Amino acid sequence: MLYDPFKSHFLFLILSFSLCVSQTLALNSVPEPDASALTYLWPLPSEFTSGNRTLSVDPDLSLAVAGIGGNSAIVRAAFDRYRAIIFKHTSGISIFSRFTGRSSVYDINKLKIIVNSDNEELQLGVDESYTLFVSKNDGKSIIGEATIEANTVYGALRGLETFSQLCSFDYGTKSVLVYKAPWCIWDKPRFAFRGLLLDTSRHYFPIYVIKQIIESMSYAKLNVFHWHIIDEESFPLEVPAYPKLWKGSYTKWERYTVEDAYEIVNFAKARGINVMAEIDIPGHAESWGTGYPDLWPSTSCREPLDVTKNFTFDVISGILTDMRKIFPFELFHLGGDEVNTDCWSSTPHVKQWLQDRNMTAKDAYKYFVLKAQEIAISKNWTPVNWEETFNSFAENLNPRTVVHNWLGAGVCPKAVAKGFKCIFSNQGFWYLDHLDVPWNEVYTAEPLEGINETSKQELVLGGEVCMWGETADTSDVQQTIWPRAAAAAERMWSRRDAISTGNITLTALPRLQYFRCLLNRRGVQAAPVTNKYARRPPTGAGSCYEQ
Amino acid sequence: MLYDPFKSHFLFLILSFSLCVSQTLALNSVPEPDASALTYLWPLPSEFTSGNRTLSVDPDLSLAVAGIGGNSAIVRAAFDRYRAIIFKHTSGISIFSRFTGRSSVYDINKLKIIVNSDNEELQLGVDESYTLFVSKNDGKSIIGEATIEANTVYGALRGLETFSQLCSFDYGTKSVLVYKAPWCIWDKPRFAFRGLLLDTSRHYFPIYVIKQIIESMSYAKLNVFHWHIIDEESFPLEVPAYPKLWKGSYTKWERYTVEDAYEIVNFAKARGINVMAEIDIPGHAESWGTGYPDLWPSTSCREPLDVTKNFTFDVISGILTDMRKIFPFELFHLGGDEVNTDCWSSTPHVKQWLQDRNMTAKDAYKYFVLKAQEIAISKNWTPVNWEETFNSFAENLNPRTVVHNWLGAGVCPKAVAKGFKCIFSNQGFWYLDHLDVPWNEVYTAEPLEGINETSKQELVLGGEVCMWGETADTSDVQQTIWPRAAAAAERMWSRRDAISTGNITLTALPRLQYFRCLLNRRGVQAAPVTNKYARRPPTGAGSCYEQ
Repeated sequence: MLYDPFKSHFLFLILSFSLCVSQTLALNSVPEPDASALTYLWPLPSEFTSGNRTLSVDPDLSLAVAGIGGNSAIVRAAFDRYRAIIFKHTSGISIFSRFTGRSSVYDINKLKIIVNSDNEELQLGVDESYTLFVSKNDGKSIIGEATIEANTVYGALRGLETFSQLCSFDYGTKSVLVYKAPWCIWDKPRFAFRGLLLDTSRHYFPIYVIKQIIESMSYAKLNVFHWHIIDEESFPLEVPAYPKLWKGSYTKWERYTVEDAYEIVNFAKARGINVMAEIDIPGHAESWGTGYPDLWPSTSCREPLDVTKNFTFDVISGILTDMRKIFPFELFHLGGDEVNTDCWSSTPHVKQWLQDRNMTAKDAYKYFVLKAQEIAISKNWTPVNWEETFNSFAENLNPRTVVHNWLGAGVCPKAVAKGFKCIFSNQGFWYLDHLDVPWNEVYTAEPLEGINETSKQELVLGGEVCMWGETADTSDVQQTIWPRAAAAAERMWSRRDAISTGNITLTALPRLQYFRCLLNRRGVQAAPVTNKYARRPPTGAGSCYEQ
Repeated sequence: MLYDPFKSHFLFLILSFSLCVSQTLALNSVPEPDASALTYLWPLPSEFTSGNRTLSVDPDLSLAVAGIGGNSAIVRAAFDRYRAIIFKHTSGISIFSRFTGRSSVYDINKLKIIVNSDNEELQLGVDESYTLFVSKNDGKSIIGEATIEANTVYGALRGLETFSQLCSFDYGTKSVLVYKAPWCIWDKPRFAFRGLLLDTSRHYFPIYVIKQIIESMSYAKLNVFHWHIIDEESFPLEVPAYPKLWKGSYTKWERYTVEDAYEIVNFAKARGINVMAEIDIPGHAESWGTGYPDLWPSTSCREPLDVTKNFTFDVISGILTDMRKIFPFELFHLGGDEVNTDCWSSTPHVKQWLQDRNMTAKDAYKYFVLKAQEIAISKNWTPVNWEETFNSFAENLNPRTVVHNWLGAGVCPKAVAKGFKCIFSNQGFWYLDHLDVPWNEVYTAEPLEGINETSKQELVLGGEVCMWGETADTSDVQQTIWPRAAAAAERMWSRRDAISTGNITLTALPRLQYFRCLLNRRGVQAAPVTNKYARRPPTGAGSCYEQ
């Protein structure tokens, strides 16, 4: 379905497009106060037209569903969430208006959501396209009022987000207005994989906070939550097959149960977000040995995991079996980065094992990664590995491997040239813990840089911003993620040509500042956009829209 | 009612106390794993005993109400909120347990809340006392299970918070447990006024964020939200009598409607928190003149408000009339700090007015403050003023004035010596924007310092931590407030003798770190406790409980 979203709606599209154009042309040409040259939607939709009419939205906005997938619990729950967001200010006012007899006639009373499939499986490449029309129902239009049409519920979710961004509270009339109507939007993402990594090992994040982060991802239309669950510092997740593993958590209160993980997956799914779990092996795994010291080469040399023992691979297999029940997403991240093999070379029994097999430590690294890939594939997973695996032994990697770039530029071009899929996370731009990268450098980093053939471009699944946890905890994670993650989100969602021309200080910055304030209004602690260092407090008093 | 909470429950108290003691003594003396020497409740209750039994809490915990005030919407809504907090982890588990037949027998199935008055008026000195008993219902006890008794719904809210802090999720049994039961707690605040100031003029805070802050205040049992609404930078509030005033907002989106303000007051009331509004006059009011330039001495010299015009006082009176409808709290803050009268001395028509009346600029400052006090009192308000008014003309201040200390030590002793009530906010300790004040200096600052006579001590209403907004916006306000505001909250709630002895690094710090992690779990961005500067990120990976 990917990249061909509208095939079944061609007639509808033509019809509604001509209606949009005719409505737009028919409008009074006096500019409304909010008729700005910029379109304050983030990320920018693929195609859209707007007019110059201002419409009011009924605080009792109702939902009408259609299509075989319309009557979905996911759609209904999302409508309720967005209604709460759209009418944050007006909860008390509609009642007040009724009593005082103030304006009770609204232009938009109903949002119609049409979903053309009842398949709610959420996988890589799921159709997220949607069309959104917002116009006054004057009895003549066949579209009427506000309508979202999508092929899947996940497209409908993206349309709801866009609709919510069209709605703004007007303090003069105390009502929610849509400026520049009629709106006709045809939208779809550029990349299928638009991720955010969260590291819950360097710092533990309570499940409530993880949910806040996932919720905020949906506002920017990000769609993969890369859960870097475990690392050398702590092992917070319950693994029923090996119940001592989470003894490696910081404290007994800094843990995730299996049920917590399920809940996070379901919470994310309801927002059209897949959860890609990671176990980073064989390096970055010291915490595993707290519960099972046999996983360490020795008690004094604890990383990488002991490559010599069957037990090591039994544990990996056990973890993957348990995780397979929790994480339905087809991609699973096996890490594989920054493997320092000194412990293998220096620990007598490992050294002997290498000698017996005539293997170098580097050979053993390859052996380990490939064996783990086999286990993952046997459990019906597509393995993702950090780029070191590709850089070290590309020719041996399973061809299904997704190469996850991080060290620098030029890796995805090499990976796709060899036929591998790739995810772009160049640390110079998309590592959110690099606080000195300004929003514009995040914004202009391009996952397809250096890849010109269409067939190779299609192997780039997308990209991911990475929120490593050394100095990020509950107190500061959201303002480290936002607003810069939004800059990457537009890069990954919007048409490359539409966001790569012109002066972005004029075309993107005011829109990003607006989106940052939108996040703030929704309770997300997005930081000022233009500070020299990310997540720093504002330098003085001032408007959210200018900081 | 203040400070005499238990008068009507003497018999109940004696009876339950003896039960507590006998239950405690009857217990098995093998220490439970969580039998720490410290009591992880914040702020520390007035009196309590605990045992060494561990009790499980039913995820379907039900509410039973009694007393003429028990059947209150405030109590029911609070119970629902706290149930969501207590069972954050277990929402999916109780169902799971039922299917698998795992432990379905819990020690505590019901929380009984007894409220002995149906008067829900929330004013200064409202009875916030409560008793809380948590014990296993073995058929013999007349208390049984978990019981909160309070004289008002607001006492019941405080008891619910304490109950929620006794409940902790155990990852081993995947259930909510109460350690060290039975618990017998008799609690009441030391001070009637325990405030937090938020400045919504230097930065605008969305109403959702203000609600988050108010909600978090209730976790630390703070009870006054001092809303410093307007300052020289912006005028965000709607004033129906003078509708151009909010033209002084930063943008048309950074405003509060009258309905927003109502909603904040009601939200706070449901959490037992009063809203004390402030208009800071005659200084700190430049933004007033954006809508009404006549309020400025001249367009080139804009502060303080023009003392010469009736219009100035008409506007003040109009604001106070409109605000009186919104803010039921008896205290209203009239500011009065940092008044630089240069504009009065240099603007010709003001200078002339002063000469005509043989007044100095300082006389005019006094004239302005006293006139504003009269207006406030005429509208049935008790005026609060920053200490400069007291420092400058104590003998003229209305005797009902509450003096709000901020500049330094020694002001409350002087104010109460002259019979004024006082609020303690010594900036050296309780100004949260002073980022270099560590938690322990916040903790040990004592509102009664230098006041030894009981009759004078009673004039100290309490204290307030102040979150000025120059560098605080939505992105960083919560981690600037927390955890230091909690240090002050315990100072104001708990018995002075109980928190002023011993080594606070051993008695308070681990408890504050625990409370900080509790805030994090509830989604509040409380910062690490022991960083040298407040609100700084963690310096490296680690457990929440040690940072």
